[in-house]
Amino acid sequence: MTVRNALVVGTGLIGTSVALALREKGTAIHLSDVDADALRLAEELGAGREWTGGKVDLAVLAVPPHLVGDRLAWLQKEGAARAYTDVASVKAGPIADADRLGCDPASYVPGHPLAGRERSGPAAARADLFLGRPWALCPRAETDAGALGLVRELVSLCGAEVVTVPAGDHDAAVALVSHAPHVAASAVAAALAGGDDVALSLAGQGLRDVTRIAAGDPGLWRRILSGNAVPVASVLERIAADLAATASALRSGDLDGVTDLLRRGVEGHARIPGKHGSPVRDFAVVQVVLRDRPGELARLFNAAELAEVNIEDVRLEHSTGLPVGVAEVSVRPDDTGRLAEALRFHGWHVPRVSR
Amino acid sequence: MTVRNALVVGTGLIGTSVALALREKGTAIHLSDVDADALRLAEELGAGREWTGGKVDLAVLAVPPHLVGDRLAWLQKEGAARAYTDVASVKAGPIADADRLGCDPASYVPGHPLAGRERSGPAAARADLFLGRPWALCPRAETDAGALGLVRELVSLCGAEVVTVPAGDHDAAVALVSHAPHVAASAVAAALAGGDDVALSLAGQGLRDVTRIAAGDPGLWRRILSGNAVPVASVLERIAADLAATASALRSGDLDGVTDLLRRGVEGHARIPGKHGSPVRDFAVVQVVLRDRPGELARLFNAAELAEVNIEDVRLEHSTGLPVGVAEVSVRPDDTGRLAEALRFHGWHVPRVSR
Repeated sequence: MTVRNALVVGTGLIGTSVALALREKGTAIHLSDVDADALRLAEELGAGREWTGGKVDLAVLAVPPHLVGDRLAWLQKEGAARAYTDVASVKAGPIADADRLGCDPASYVPGHPLAGRERSGPAAARADLFLGRPWALCPRAETDAGALGLVRELVSLCGAEVVTVPAGDHDAAVALVSHAPHVAASAVAAALAGGDDVALSLAGQGLRDVTRIAAGDPGLWRRILSGNAVPVASVLERIAADLAATASALRSGDLDGVTDLLRRGVEGHARIPGKHGSPVRDFAVVQVVLRDRPGELARLFNAAELAEVNIEDVRLEHSTGLPVGVAEVSVRPDDTGRLAEALRFHGWHVPRVSR
Repeated sequence: MTVRNALVVGTGLIGTSVALALREKGTAIHLSDVDADALRLAEELGAGREWTGGKVDLAVLAVPPHLVGDRLAWLQKEGAARAYTDVASVKAGPIADADRLGCDPASYVPGHPLAGRERSGPAAARADLFLGRPWALCPRAETDAGALGLVRELVSLCGAEVVTVPAGDHDAAVALVSHAPHVAASAVAAALAGGDDVALSLAGQGLRDVTRIAAGDPGLWRRILSGNAVPVASVLERIAADLAATASALRSGDLDGVTDLLRRGVEGHARIPGKHGSPVRDFAVVQVVLRDRPGELARLFNAAELAEVNIEDVRLEHSTGLPVGVAEVSVRPDDTGRLAEALRFHGWHVPRVSR
């Protein structure tokens, strides 16, 4: 059995992105949302047409975690789909709600795609949001194999990778890798609120990176955190204890205590997989000094093409008030010499080639 | 009086970058380092020639914080320069060392360029490392105006911006915006060390951002933190208290307590200035779907040039195992329509234009 048609309930960022991804694979999509504006915008983006009833192969509940059980109960009562899944970022709570409301556990496969953007709403949706990303599925003993097959196919159609994990383990995992880090970023950023302007003027890229996610919507995060309260609290308590111990070690001059945390940090950081879950690919970087004028990058890429070098990534660094910038061009390590030579031949200043 | 020649003591990342920046402006550079390999590499990179004695206009001490006082005392005894500065990331300690060792306070202007990279050593040096970055100077009542003028000229030649701040305020500021955030990132990363592989497989970009700086060298950071122990401990205690309070609020279901920290985090995050200290410029992003083949970007930039659109930034997102990627092209908001039209005309798929 394959997913010929699907109902997406909730046309926010995740729901609309699922709809767009499935549409690209030819699946007919029906949409539903209590917010008429969001629904209309998703329709205009080509995500599908409004649902007017009728049975589909698969229903995707892209609603806030605390509404999953309620919507699932209603849809199952309507007989809306052969299989159901949700995309909530916590799993134990929605499953408990569904059980409490008497939902059929056989046709419901709890899920959570690990993808997102800083912006929300259907306008931020993209068909490739899930490409190469992990998508957790939490089937239970009661789960029907046919339903699981349909939901696995959904994940595959979205270009994501299934990670099968029990709901409790899932919630502890996202507390560790997502929810507690968000609160820690908020606490670092909150400390800045009392800093003076001179102090803030000394901020660099490191601080911007550490605190970037702290800009997230407090209302949304309050719901996420409260839906996973105990696992998040456990991780926060460990982080708080490490920070308090390091503060105490600094005050008493116990430098081994400070080094211990720094070393454990290096170890923990090394365990994070690269982008898209794959090992980080090993590119070399060629730096090129650019003048800030139209066509400069076109000339650079033309020169790379003539040298038969494929450019894997580009980062531009602009300097305030200066008519120059530095392009960091990532290429295969074997190609660096040829590219640097070609660029220098065409008159660019290539200060540095590095691995 | 201008900086015609300078002595750079310490040919690591910062010292060699200062030397390269000054050389580009025509200043004659003498180098000194107890590490003969580092010195030779810096020479090979064109940073200058080994110092063999003789008086210069300015000596830049690019040595670890705990060695600044000692080296300053020796150089002043030799009469090596008209003015002296250092680049240590803490200021109260080196100044106290200098006073204790009987250094002349008039010719020494304590300094700290806020720039760095994850890599260290002369091979990572670049002449543009300081472009547009803040560079703290901490003159005292005893500081000679001529010495201050020479050091301000150094900052200007490196393309950086002077921020004048008393040493104690400087140390409190870097504790807030750099040192304590580093320890917090280490604590978040340290919590991962005990996580299982499935948990880590659910990690996303947010976690990578929060923990990126935790990969820094523990030996180097142990010295930085111990040189600024009390200010860092104060900030860490506030962050630890916020995290412990949030954990407690989560366990007791006090959601207002959770929201309070999230809100203060949004506020604090908004106070961080943009890259290079300037307000974040408001660009619009045009997404373009690219095939992964040589010349694709050249064709894209050619099309942009024909449309007379200046490209301000480009980010490439590659998808694992797929022969396509998405380029996010930043341009002035007024230019988005013309660019999207031009790209579509030339056959690209342009799924989204966003602010």
